[in-house]
Amino acid sequence: MTPIEEVEIVEVGPRDGLQNLPFYVETEKKVQLIRLLAESGIQAMEATSFVHPKAIPQFRDAAETIAGVKGTPGLKIIALVPNLLGAQRALAAGVQELSFVFSVSLSHNRNNVNKTPEESLEELKRIFDLPGMETQWTLRVNLATAFGCPFEGILPDDLVYEYTDRVVRIGAKVIALADTVGYGNPAQVRRIVAASLRQYPERHFIIHLHNTRGLGLANALAAYEAGLRTFDSSIGGLGGCPYAPGATGNISTEDLVFMFESMGVKTGIRFPQLFRASNYLREILPGVEFSSGVLKAGLPKGMWDGAV
Amino acid sequence: MTPIEEVEIVEVGPRDGLQNLPFYVETEKKVQLIRLLAESGIQAMEATSFVHPKAIPQFRDAAETIAGVKGTPGLKIIALVPNLLGAQRALAAGVQELSFVFSVSLSHNRNNVNKTPEESLEELKRIFDLPGMETQWTLRVNLATAFGCPFEGILPDDLVYEYTDRVVRIGAKVIALADTVGYGNPAQVRRIVAASLRQYPERHFIIHLHNTRGLGLANALAAYEAGLRTFDSSIGGLGGCPYAPGATGNISTEDLVFMFESMGVKTGIRFPQLFRASNYLREILPGVEFSSGVLKAGLPKGMWDGAV
Repeated sequence: MTPIEEVEIVEVGPRDGLQNLPFYVETEKKVQLIRLLAESGIQAMEATSFVHPKAIPQFRDAAETIAGVKGTPGLKIIALVPNLLGAQRALAAGVQELSFVFSVSLSHNRNNVNKTPEESLEELKRIFDLPGMETQWTLRVNLATAFGCPFEGILPDDLVYEYTDRVVRIGAKVIALADTVGYGNPAQVRRIVAASLRQYPERHFIIHLHNTRGLGLANALAAYEAGLRTFDSSIGGLGGCPYAPGATGNISTEDLVFMFESMGVKTGIRFPQLFRASNYLREILPGVEFSSGVLKAGLPKGMWDGAV
Repeated sequence: MTPIEEVEIVEVGPRDGLQNLPFYVETEKKVQLIRLLAESGIQAMEATSFVHPKAIPQFRDAAETIAGVKGTPGLKIIALVPNLLGAQRALAAGVQELSFVFSVSLSHNRNNVNKTPEESLEELKRIFDLPGMETQWTLRVNLATAFGCPFEGILPDDLVYEYTDRVVRIGAKVIALADTVGYGNPAQVRRIVAASLRQYPERHFIIHLHNTRGLGLANALAAYEAGLRTFDSSIGGLGGCPYAPGATGNISTEDLVFMFESMGVKTGIRFPQLFRASNYLREILPGVEFSSGVLKAGLPKGMWDGAV
């Protein structure tokens, strides 16, 4: 008998999805969205971002959002943190995992967080030095622009390997490779993921994909085939890309769950409840266009019937 | 050195793409679109459909369209034919390849062409019996709903194998497996494609994918990995699905070419010229929404620079 394959899906909609919206979403709506997503079976979620409220006003209620969802049964609450201060605020608010992001591309990191990658690594060290880090809390490190940069184009694989090596030596146990602007292709994803898993078999690798150029799920498939088992995705495919206005965003949670479940790979996520979260999102974001095939077309006839 | 991998892309936009539009596109625009597509390097194209003009008024100008594009350098002109009469009209008009379609699902075939699959196979035999068939002209046989049916749900793989076997025995040399309504998943596509290629190594298999539920390119990747090398796609991702109004259509030619070229797999298609065809399509179809990530977001920086 074939063993049952499983993947873990990290929902990033409440963070990456809401980040680019041109309007503010009230805290109670964010909280309700997170709760509905958790009810669908999602066990890990980037719930907010502890950035400076002037940088991203959407997350000026980061602490209140966390207060509203803390203790949600079965849910690991993750928050994005750009620096030490954000990390301290996030831990004080009660998140369980910090998600630190920097770009392997110098120009993108400068543009995004106004730091060189070297300076970001120094900041990362300071966060790792916080008391309780990696015992009480996890620190996930995101390598942004790992598959290409809107300023520098396609980057050499070695740049990813170099920064992976450096963050591992600083202490990273959880590393996300992010296709921040949707430049990646399946051959490249397979190559980089396979090499990373081979080089660091005891680290936990995650892939964060955008569907900007339509290859998001093909890239997810390539990463899966290369042995990776944890995937970021965003409800409704919400996300967008500041470098390609009007473009599609993160890979859609609905489509990713559909892909894996229809392949017989368990996600732990139940569709009827997931659609309740999708529909709530549509309700609170009127006029916003979503990028999810399953949300538009529904599930195949007979799939999930009665399996609530 | 790794051998250079190549794929063939069959453009179906002028047929499958235009088929569901709620308005008529003038013949000279169809002709111009086909010419622009051919200039991009596309070497095979479903240019129109010889159906009854009352069934699909869009193609009432099928013969005129063929007259307008006949002799386009480097282009094999294919036309869809639902029956013997359509085949005769298509050959008289001067097409080089006929594309006959029937559904392996009984209820879908009834709904689509008002025949049982048995009756369709009888019609197929009559077309194979036309003088010159498979010497002067090719007859491509499309197995619609091969990966699922909107009425019957997911179908057993054996149904596809059974009908493949039957059309092979009737004389089919070119067989397209069509995911007519976007039910397919990568595991299923890989399994069915691999088994088909193994069983009939001397037949030419094609895959026809829709992106209805977002898995189109993941399915294309799976088919490629299973050894298949000919793919249908539609400029701008045009197509739609009568069973899922508002859903996305065929896989987008732009995205498919981007996927393969960025993986180092040659398509023979040049992006600058392809974008001229995409832009012409946008011009002649105002208000129509396209489903192509590359068309929305553009190519990665540095890709295809100067390589016109």
